[in-house]
Amino acid sequence: MLKLYGFPASNYFNMVKMALMEKGAPYEDVRVFTGQSEDFLAKSAMGKVPCLETPDGFLTETSVILEYIEDVVDGPSFFPADAFGRARARELLKYSELYIELPARRCYGEAFFGTGPVSDEVKATVRPVLERGCRAIRRLGRFSPYLAGDDVSYADFVFMHAFPNAAAVARIVFDWDLNDALPEAAGLLERLNQRPVAIKVAEDARNGMREFREAYGMKG
Amino acid sequence: MLKLYGFPASNYFNMVKMALMEKGAPYEDVRVFTGQSEDFLAKSAMGKVPCLETPDGFLTETSVILEYIEDVVDGPSFFPADAFGRARARELLKYSELYIELPARRCYGEAFFGTGPVSDEVKATVRPVLERGCRAIRRLGRFSPYLAGDDVSYADFVFMHAFPNAAAVARIVFDWDLNDALPEAAGLLERLNQRPVAIKVAEDARNGMREFREAYGMKG
Repeated sequence: MLKLYGFPASNYFNMVKMALMEKGAPYEDVRVFTGQSEDFLAKSAMGKVPCLETPDGFLTETSVILEYIEDVVDGPSFFPADAFGRARARELLKYSELYIELPARRCYGEAFFGTGPVSDEVKATVRPVLERGCRAIRRLGRFSPYLAGDDVSYADFVFMHAFPNAAAVARIVFDWDLNDALPEAAGLLERLNQRPVAIKVAEDARNGMREFREAYGMKG
Repeated sequence: MLKLYGFPASNYFNMVKMALMEKGAPYEDVRVFTGQSEDFLAKSAMGKVPCLETPDGFLTETSVILEYIEDVVDGPSFFPADAFGRARARELLKYSELYIELPARRCYGEAFFGTGPVSDEVKATVRPVLERGCRAIRRLGRFSPYLAGDDVSYADFVFMHAFPNAAAVARIVFDWDLNDALPEAAGLLERLNQRPVAIKVAEDARNGMREFREAYGMKG
């Protein structure tokens, strides 16, 4: 059985967890936090979560794990059936990661972790990437009703766990409503958040916040 | 026929160009540079290169385009045949991008473009990512003789166009030999650079440097 390593307050963990649950796949949930111990690096070579234990070894990187799940796990496909549609879904997934999640993450310290303000240099780098990322997703997204078209896809699972944190960063750090840059996000998130799997993942995330803050030595 | 947009001094352009040429695929080469014009954003929503024109529309992001090429273009496969091997190749490709190319790129201004030194803050962020990236690729790479195993893969096409620039950044900005962190790189690059396609791509890249510097207003 596949084993998913990570913790429920991690948005990347939840992208994969959502995919496994939407597939209806049996899997085991193993609690680990990020770190640089030799033991953990043997599972996750960058020390990040999530990682997936498979019969053939460990895999990391959310997009890589999602492709693997699509390859080997029975259940509904969460990629469009045609090659171009599949490519577009991968593109929207990658935009959500590179131009929404990762730039916003550089401000997580200030926005979420109480580690003080990020530098003006970082802010000046992050904001235009978020602006362009939202504009690009607006341009390529279908929202008909899902991000990549008629059917829910892996791009949705990534976007729905990337955009809300980025919107919080934008509000807290830039006093900026990211929904202005991507007005279609709110309706999409509302649809996605109604899915039974999403409700369960979000509930677990809320319940996992204390454990997460304790693991990283943050004040409750 | 597929059309590949970009310019030969771009390492990302060359990752895709190499894949198309190794496939033996006919394609048309269209010269464009990065930019934020409305006309170009209609092709490449982040304004980046490369982008690929397909019968169904434009695609961007090197890793997305490589997957599309594997999906639709006849010729040899550059992914391992088994699901785990394929996932590992995708993982090594992604590590090469996220933890080698992208962090090094943040220092390209100082290293290559004469735009002055990057800040100590950026340097302090970039170096540990490169260190961890090299360590991770060393751990997961097979080098037997190729990055993901016996056969050349898309991971090689990305790594071979990511590592040399990163090594130059390390040398110029950090006075650090990146080969010390990833001793297997030199032999791998030597093997890859002997491929006829690689020789042609490198020659085009050298010949494209003047055009590139002129396009971006850099001194020759």
